[in-house]
Amino acid sequence: MPGRYDDIMSLSVRKGFIWPTADIYGGFGGFYDYGHLGAGLKRKWEDAWLRHFVKSEDNYYLVDTTTILPYRSLKASGHVDHFTDVMAKCSNCGESFRGDQLLEDATGASAEGMSPDDIDAKLEELRLKCPECEGEFEATELFNMMFPLAVGPAGTDDAFLRPETAQGVYLNFKREFEALRRRIPMGLAIMGRAFRNEISPRQGTYRMREFIQAELQIFFDPEDEGFPSSMSLSDFDGLGVRVAFEEDRENVQALSCQELMDKGLPWFYVAHMAKVQSFYTDLLGYPPEKFRFAELGEDERAFYNKIHFDIQIDMGSLGGFKEVAGIHYRTDHDLSGHEKESHEKMSVSSGGRRFIPHVLELSFGVDRNVWSLLDTFYKKNERSILKLPPPLAPIEAGVFPLLSKDGLPELAREVYTRLRKEFDCFYDASGSIGKRYARMDEIGTPYCITIDHDSLKDNTVTVRERDTTDQTREGIDALPDVLRKLLRTF
Amino acid sequence: MPGRYDDIMSLSVRKGFIWPTADIYGGFGGFYDYGHLGAGLKRKWEDAWLRHFVKSEDNYYLVDTTTILPYRSLKASGHVDHFTDVMAKCSNCGESFRGDQLLEDATGASAEGMSPDDIDAKLEELRLKCPECEGEFEATELFNMMFPLAVGPAGTDDAFLRPETAQGVYLNFKREFEALRRRIPMGLAIMGRAFRNEISPRQGTYRMREFIQAELQIFFDPEDEGFPSSMSLSDFDGLGVRVAFEEDRENVQALSCQELMDKGLPWFYVAHMAKVQSFYTDLLGYPPEKFRFAELGEDERAFYNKIHFDIQIDMGSLGGFKEVAGIHYRTDHDLSGHEKESHEKMSVSSGGRRFIPHVLELSFGVDRNVWSLLDTFYKKNERSILKLPPPLAPIEAGVFPLLSKDGLPELAREVYTRLRKEFDCFYDASGSIGKRYARMDEIGTPYCITIDHDSLKDNTVTVRERDTTDQTREGIDALPDVLRKLLRTF
Repeated sequence: MPGRYDDIMSLSVRKGFIWPTADIYGGFGGFYDYGHLGAGLKRKWEDAWLRHFVKSEDNYYLVDTTTILPYRSLKASGHVDHFTDVMAKCSNCGESFRGDQLLEDATGASAEGMSPDDIDAKLEELRLKCPECEGEFEATELFNMMFPLAVGPAGTDDAFLRPETAQGVYLNFKREFEALRRRIPMGLAIMGRAFRNEISPRQGTYRMREFIQAELQIFFDPEDEGFPSSMSLSDFDGLGVRVAFEEDRENVQALSCQELMDKGLPWFYVAHMAKVQSFYTDLLGYPPEKFRFAELGEDERAFYNKIHFDIQIDMGSLGGFKEVAGIHYRTDHDLSGHEKESHEKMSVSSGGRRFIPHVLELSFGVDRNVWSLLDTFYKKNERSILKLPPPLAPIEAGVFPLLSKDGLPELAREVYTRLRKEFDCFYDASGSIGKRYARMDEIGTPYCITIDHDSLKDNTVTVRERDTTDQTREGIDALPDVLRKLLRTF
Repeated sequence: MPGRYDDIMSLSVRKGFIWPTADIYGGFGGFYDYGHLGAGLKRKWEDAWLRHFVKSEDNYYLVDTTTILPYRSLKASGHVDHFTDVMAKCSNCGESFRGDQLLEDATGASAEGMSPDDIDAKLEELRLKCPECEGEFEATELFNMMFPLAVGPAGTDDAFLRPETAQGVYLNFKREFEALRRRIPMGLAIMGRAFRNEISPRQGTYRMREFIQAELQIFFDPEDEGFPSSMSLSDFDGLGVRVAFEEDRENVQALSCQELMDKGLPWFYVAHMAKVQSFYTDLLGYPPEKFRFAELGEDERAFYNKIHFDIQIDMGSLGGFKEVAGIHYRTDHDLSGHEKESHEKMSVSSGGRRFIPHVLELSFGVDRNVWSLLDTFYKKNERSILKLPPPLAPIEAGVFPLLSKDGLPELAREVYTRLRKEFDCFYDASGSIGKRYARMDEIGTPYCITIDHDSLKDNTVTVRERDTTDQTREGIDALPDVLRKLLRTF
């Protein structure tokens, strides 16, 4: 459904959500910038994520670490050796492609995780040619997706841009464990940029070379069957976790937590599935049928994950269910790797034993989530409305004088000036009132406040709701309370 | 005062503010990470900055753009040709140094902006040798401080990590101008990471290779003498702007806005000096005598600035007044450069004329500001206290049961659970109550709530204030209101 993609990109560019980086220089493949509405929406999504996953738990915190990391840290994590895609290069025009994508485009079946030899054999079998020039492919090879960098004037300090935020947490695990007085479970989150030199960044904003992650690493004792202690099975009575297993990807089942555990998933994993689903369908209001977990098979999982379900949203603009996040049971892979390479002990004492903590990672692609909000909540009918959850709206209230005379603009300015101290407001006096409503509808502004002639007499205004267009009459002095109740619902 | 630096770094590392990146691998020169307290403090500082400089103005917004930028955009901005330091390399041991720093260390006088030839002559005249091995220096050369990157599988897309956030705004100027319906003044801010491959990153966190900026670019009509319209001279009656001019750097004068204008500074520049000083001394409570503007001379200014005052804080840990921010009148340098290189018109129509907007930049080093908060507000006497402004405290309230029995922990947990939905709280039941207060004092927690035996009877608790140690008795149900009044003061 490319029309849907174009609709959303057009809205984005016209209004200021997202657009290609450096487009005055003809663009820059795989890079996108956030305009003022996109940046506002993104920051509010991040705040909601922080509240739901980090601030809700004891001993969970946000940290922030550098995006440039030294070679040895990424050697230890396995990224230097294993963070690769299979690259197929045309012997004629020199263009490069991802081998698995060539196969997927030709067959429709996933080819993720196939080796260069297997891909060579399959390309040969299908007699695939370069999509650009019909040339023959050279033998495929592994291509490391990290961006290398030389640090220092002599360029001798080898480094990379981080391919995920997670490593910054692992490098700081010991220091935080001490500063936080040696308690696990301990959760450390980073929201920040990560970088992957994609061979062919396609699908617009979906596969970018520079992107933003919100990742939470939870360090826990793998023998603690009560983890997480803040949740228990009875909290999720009646919840159907929407899940598609590897062997039958198209069949989404709604299973109880107990049923998932009966299938062999540990409690701590299932509890976090429930917490994630609640974030999307309860808090943000995604229609449940557009949400699912998709199990990844051994070939498809990153090399460090023991259990891995993608979190997917059905997006019209991208042709179906697409990954926006994942829950990854990384075991002690990373801490053990750093212990081995750095010779710093990563084990801790807890519950009378000494062990290297295991890690459960909640990993969210922030850009993909922002895009999924636009895809899910943008309705283009007679009225174009972006039905964003009100707490995420980049502009929370429009403030309008009904007419540009009779003292209405002065009073409207006064109302606007008072409200903007606490709320994100937009003052608009140009065009018909219907046009002003329509402009606010299209960027997701949930409430519009109009100052009319009655306002001059009795100090009341109309408050119009975006989705229903219902209007109520409220006193000017009551507006902060009214808006607080309507907007601060997370 | 290196002892002061060590005190703050020791506090940082022990408690979780800031520490060297990847120190399990022996560190990584010029890179620092934020622990959970540092990340919390930084995010609150950013929110305060956003409110004071961006959200307070009409048509000013936060945006967010990529850190990797294509070659041509940084060619256009002048960074490819001019963003250089003079590098002196030892012919014996091969170590590299900044030429101006070698001279400054030897003479105590600023050598910023000197050419390679002049530095060669001066090194010769002073007979300076390599500080590492006493070897001779090779002829100095210009070293570009940007990190180059190759994007794409063939490595053919030349790019750099951005040396400042500002360019991301300039590249998006036209798009935002359209999305925001063609109004100037227009302000666009970015808070994010920037990168400079410093030749010798010294002074710990002060000169880093990866750092965080909060920068606001204000586009305005240079002939609009009323800009900024939200401020007027009479707003600043009685204000003494603390300023040190180039010709007499040690003499800080307190001048009125009118006196600064009489010295030839334009109104728009002076108004923003007043706004910046108010941020530090009124809002954040820095002692005025620790704050000053320092004028930069032509040799010291970046190549794109016509008027440039550094904003400096007197920091014991860094041996005196040090730059934490700057106000830069960049004229139309950047937009004109991009127009020339991209052939996209950057001019706008406004007030009946067509012109390229001028830019006033407010540029803040976030890391330096966080460090200056620690330096300014950490008092190490009998009691060690971090007297942070309460709205910036990473932990806003400690919650303690007086004893670990008699049902006190249960009630304390209940209070903690209720408060943490809205406030950043820390629950602590270990050690004497005095020890728990002391731990909170040292990380800047402004309020501690203690649940005692009376609490069980009458539902009241003590609220202790950090700086005075004064205690008041408050009802449990009133706590959210009490804390809101005490903490939400910005």
